[in-house]
Amino acid sequence: MAHPRPETPLLDRVCGPADMKVLSDADLARLAEEVRAEVISVVSETGGHLGSSLGVVELTVALHAVFNTPTDKLIWDVGHQCYPHKILTGRRDRMRSLRQGGGLSGFTKRSESDYDPFGAAHSSTSISAALGFAMGRELGQPVGDTIAVIGDGSITAGMAYEAMNHAGHLGKRLFVILNDNDMSIAPPVGAMSRYLLGLGAPFAALKAAADGLESVLPGPLRDGARRARQLVTGMPGGATLFEQLGFTYIGPVDGHDMPSLLATLRAARARTTGPVLIHAITVKGKGFAPAELAEDKYHGVSKFNPVTGEQAKSKSNAPSYTSVFGNTLTEAAARDPRIVGITAAMPSGTGLDIMQRRFPGRVFDVGIAEQHGVTFAAGLAAAGMKPFCAIYSSFLQRGYDQIAHDVALQNLPVRFAIDRAGLVGADGATHAGAFDVGFLTTLPNMTVMAAGDEAELVHMIATAVAHDEGPIAFRFPRGEGVGLELPAQGEVLQIGRGRVVREGADAAILSFGAHLHEALRAAALLEAEGISATVADARFAKPLDTGLIDQLARHHAALVTLEQGAMGGFGGHVLHYLANSGGLDGGIILRAMTLPDRFIEQASPEAMYADAGLRAEDIAATVRNALARGKVTPLRQSQKPRAV
Amino acid sequence: MAHPRPETPLLDRVCGPADMKVLSDADLARLAEEVRAEVISVVSETGGHLGSSLGVVELTVALHAVFNTPTDKLIWDVGHQCYPHKILTGRRDRMRSLRQGGGLSGFTKRSESDYDPFGAAHSSTSISAALGFAMGRELGQPVGDTIAVIGDGSITAGMAYEAMNHAGHLGKRLFVILNDNDMSIAPPVGAMSRYLLGLGAPFAALKAAADGLESVLPGPLRDGARRARQLVTGMPGGATLFEQLGFTYIGPVDGHDMPSLLATLRAARARTTGPVLIHAITVKGKGFAPAELAEDKYHGVSKFNPVTGEQAKSKSNAPSYTSVFGNTLTEAAARDPRIVGITAAMPSGTGLDIMQRRFPGRVFDVGIAEQHGVTFAAGLAAAGMKPFCAIYSSFLQRGYDQIAHDVALQNLPVRFAIDRAGLVGADGATHAGAFDVGFLTTLPNMTVMAAGDEAELVHMIATAVAHDEGPIAFRFPRGEGVGLELPAQGEVLQIGRGRVVREGADAAILSFGAHLHEALRAAALLEAEGISATVADARFAKPLDTGLIDQLARHHAALVTLEQGAMGGFGGHVLHYLANSGGLDGGIILRAMTLPDRFIEQASPEAMYADAGLRAEDIAATVRNALARGKVTPLRQSQKPRAV
Repeated sequence: MAHPRPETPLLDRVCGPADMKVLSDADLARLAEEVRAEVISVVSETGGHLGSSLGVVELTVALHAVFNTPTDKLIWDVGHQCYPHKILTGRRDRMRSLRQGGGLSGFTKRSESDYDPFGAAHSSTSISAALGFAMGRELGQPVGDTIAVIGDGSITAGMAYEAMNHAGHLGKRLFVILNDNDMSIAPPVGAMSRYLLGLGAPFAALKAAADGLESVLPGPLRDGARRARQLVTGMPGGATLFEQLGFTYIGPVDGHDMPSLLATLRAARARTTGPVLIHAITVKGKGFAPAELAEDKYHGVSKFNPVTGEQAKSKSNAPSYTSVFGNTLTEAAARDPRIVGITAAMPSGTGLDIMQRRFPGRVFDVGIAEQHGVTFAAGLAAAGMKPFCAIYSSFLQRGYDQIAHDVALQNLPVRFAIDRAGLVGADGATHAGAFDVGFLTTLPNMTVMAAGDEAELVHMIATAVAHDEGPIAFRFPRGEGVGLELPAQGEVLQIGRGRVVREGADAAILSFGAHLHEALRAAALLEAEGISATVADARFAKPLDTGLIDQLARHHAALVTLEQGAMGGFGGHVLHYLANSGGLDGGIILRAMTLPDRFIEQASPEAMYADAGLRAEDIAATVRNALARGKVTPLRQSQKPRAV
Repeated sequence: MAHPRPETPLLDRVCGPADMKVLSDADLARLAEEVRAEVISVVSETGGHLGSSLGVVELTVALHAVFNTPTDKLIWDVGHQCYPHKILTGRRDRMRSLRQGGGLSGFTKRSESDYDPFGAAHSSTSISAALGFAMGRELGQPVGDTIAVIGDGSITAGMAYEAMNHAGHLGKRLFVILNDNDMSIAPPVGAMSRYLLGLGAPFAALKAAADGLESVLPGPLRDGARRARQLVTGMPGGATLFEQLGFTYIGPVDGHDMPSLLATLRAARARTTGPVLIHAITVKGKGFAPAELAEDKYHGVSKFNPVTGEQAKSKSNAPSYTSVFGNTLTEAAARDPRIVGITAAMPSGTGLDIMQRRFPGRVFDVGIAEQHGVTFAAGLAAAGMKPFCAIYSSFLQRGYDQIAHDVALQNLPVRFAIDRAGLVGADGATHAGAFDVGFLTTLPNMTVMAAGDEAELVHMIATAVAHDEGPIAFRFPRGEGVGLELPAQGEVLQIGRGRVVREGADAAILSFGAHLHEALRAAALLEAEGISATVADARFAKPLDTGLIDQLARHHAALVTLEQGAMGGFGGHVLHYLANSGGLDGGIILRAMTLPDRFIEQASPEAMYADAGLRAEDIAATVRNALARGKVTPLRQSQKPRAV
């Protein structure tokens, strides 16, 4: 798109936070406006997390103006609101590479800048990390102040509460900025959200008091919110929840009013001795009308027209796995009243919003609370319901103990719908669904499936609906399916049975999950060079289809397992089975293809899988090399064949 | 021990909660006294969690008298305080089998009784589960009221907060009893604890008001605590933290005063429409002087004299792994000021109390908050410290996402000291450290060690101190070492290098961790039948000692891997390496010995490992069978050797 870039005379002179120290307060306000224009310009070209970044423009400028980064450690929770921060900390020239292969990360990242002391992407880690830095300082490390900026959505997670509880106990100097826009990805749920709205109410009253507001505000703020609220509302004002946890509470303050922000931060910095929480009210999407008016506040956008806000539509030929899941589960829920859905603050990301619209009382958004969400689902299952716990692979890590201790050990029929399995593209390594197959298959009682394509996903949902004997999980990738026609009704799969998708003679590829089409592509490549490959879809990593595995091993010169996950998953279990059943004893050319033992940087999913060595070409090469090896491998001394 | 059993005329007539419905309030108070005597008598014979069970005797009687279990779902958080509950719900005759093989579990357990609707052992799950049951009821399942009983320690965990936040949002009828004894396993830490003390203070004042207390209490209680506090203290009384989360708060109430308890529960049951929190003040160890006077309130005891309280001492020849860890780390901390310790409410269980006594400012007890604890440690590491995060294997599951996202992905040098690895005995399946090797080795950047004996543990601590390149974990079992003399100073091990402990010729056993002595025992058994076995200690599951593995595979007719953990761990990685390096191509007799794919019930650790098929005899049999197999295995058609 050829939209002109904004005029940014002040920003052009700011190479880093040091350059901001000489600016007047009025200039800082102007700088913020320029940063906002730059963010809009950048994201219109790259796509990304627009709304949250626009909401913290003034806050970012004020924090860098008042605090002394990078000696002071500024830690952005989740990190998707860090675009203004990146622009102001020496990365402006690379901003238009955001979220692309080889480009800037869409989140904060330690390896990218000294101004990113602690990377993020999963939510609610910032207070813990900031407290760690603060205690490092107390024990002699060269650390200045530590500041966590956390949203009202993120602060509902138990981890944030644990951190505040500990920080309040330790009582050391620590700054937490609550960036309260009453909106994380979806409108936040939970009593905490209602509570924050209540805290914010006096702020609205203050706003209404209009004239002279700014001049009045810094005064009462010095004594915290209590007096401010008292002044306006006449309420006696009990201690806030934060004060009960040992924090000094300051606020609420207008997060877009630079004089208020600067005055508040300066006062807090000058006077604070213990942990302090500064409650800033912000507007997600602030300053860009299309974002402010949109329901999702342009949380995550594709490229867009910076004038009209119109987003580029992606050309898609097939429905996304997410929508297949959402639609299929909704249809199943219409037939089976025991089906309920659980999401951890991701109704639209998981597709459960589709079911929510039709059955609002049967979809539970638990907030950013995977631990609770999993055990809540276990309770529902114990009560006789059929809970579908829809959590992205990488976020399911948050509920691992609950899966082990509350679900698997009690053999409760919780259904785990695991979206974003495998590599996910622009969100990078933090969002990769790499570990779920390993951490789930190791648990007794679990059944673990992966969908080879979108039609298989439909069958797996039907299978999960029918499976009342214990927990069952099915994983599927981000993005679109391969374009198959969807079955009118899902078929209940036989537990632990895979399928042969393509018959061959020389080698077998046993695929688990959505890399099935790459396996088929590999088989086609091999065909062209005269190698005949069988391709099988394991469907189940647990229980394994041992009959299929035996058969593939017996009738092919080489067997290659394939999965969109880390070492220690499907391939490892196939190997374990073969070893202990004697299947390796006579010699077998076997290769296990997994993600490599390193984190893969963001790029397109295709580029990431290429980086991982999991393209069809890589699979074909592995098969080819395995077969070649089979022809020349000498047998070990101790296993020379004997007459039988 | 031949101590007489207590007289329990009332209890003898109670076969289940139904029999309690006909008792007068005065009889219920007497019944509680008999239950207390029975608990003391039982635990004096079996050992177990005495203090917490004594603290809830009256509460248990009152709950079963007022509510309608098992239709009403009574869920005990952690579950170690459930002995009175078990006595009253038809399990009295089996109480003296508590925590023993084939006996009653020391925790609540669904498979044991309809009165245990949701099992537990890890903390802070009860509100989530109770809310799941409650929503199941709202959606038509045959569930009555749901009651979670949670301690003041457990409620500090983020998971409990997440659950309250969600319950407050949903607003449905739900009972949470806060069992506040200001003491979980260790004195609780955190601002929440201080806050609860503050809430409890008016209660102390009430207590002082002495006469007529009970007659006054139910009245103001109907309007919740605010008015009660107001009456006594004259304070205006802001909303409690629980009210801010959407709960009706009732209390504090004397958890040992049966009339108060009954009046409060009956009133709450009759009037409540939404979520309610009843704050009961109890005394851990109540009614048994030795327990009340002990610092740990007899949290977990061995068999004892029910008159004097004197506990049986275990005869030990070797120090426990825990104390070796605590002492060695303390010595290292004396030399290196960057070393700090982190525990999640387990200072004495982890041995960090030893370091805490000497360096109180360098040991952080974060409360029951593994998620926060791990990321706090990551923050400390990023600040330049050397954090040792000491968390039991099964509890480390709570911090898995933080290990993956905050530690491994950022390659921060957090040291994980993983006690209670493998099977742990009386605490049973919930506490088994079965999965850590799998869930850690699958993460890039991690280094994973296991101590073959207590001297190895000393070396691994030294290795972890020296390893600043990234995260490193070392696991060790519950209980005593094998009796080796400890090295004066730990040696820094070469990363990824194992050691050969015993040279043999026919077969090799490659052991990872503390089953090393069983491997040596197996080798001795094999020796007696003329089979010569090499025994190697892998030391590292990641990175693997591939040189050692190749050598063992090449020079022995069979290779058996051995570990105290589930499938998907060390053995799986050895197999993966061998497959992809071509080490399996020529045929190799390889067996991977792990825990079986099922949860192992409590018994002595020896009996549990026997159940798991991991005794020396089992290992020897595996080696013997593998060797026999190697002599007769026909080679597969496709791999007939060719001239090379």
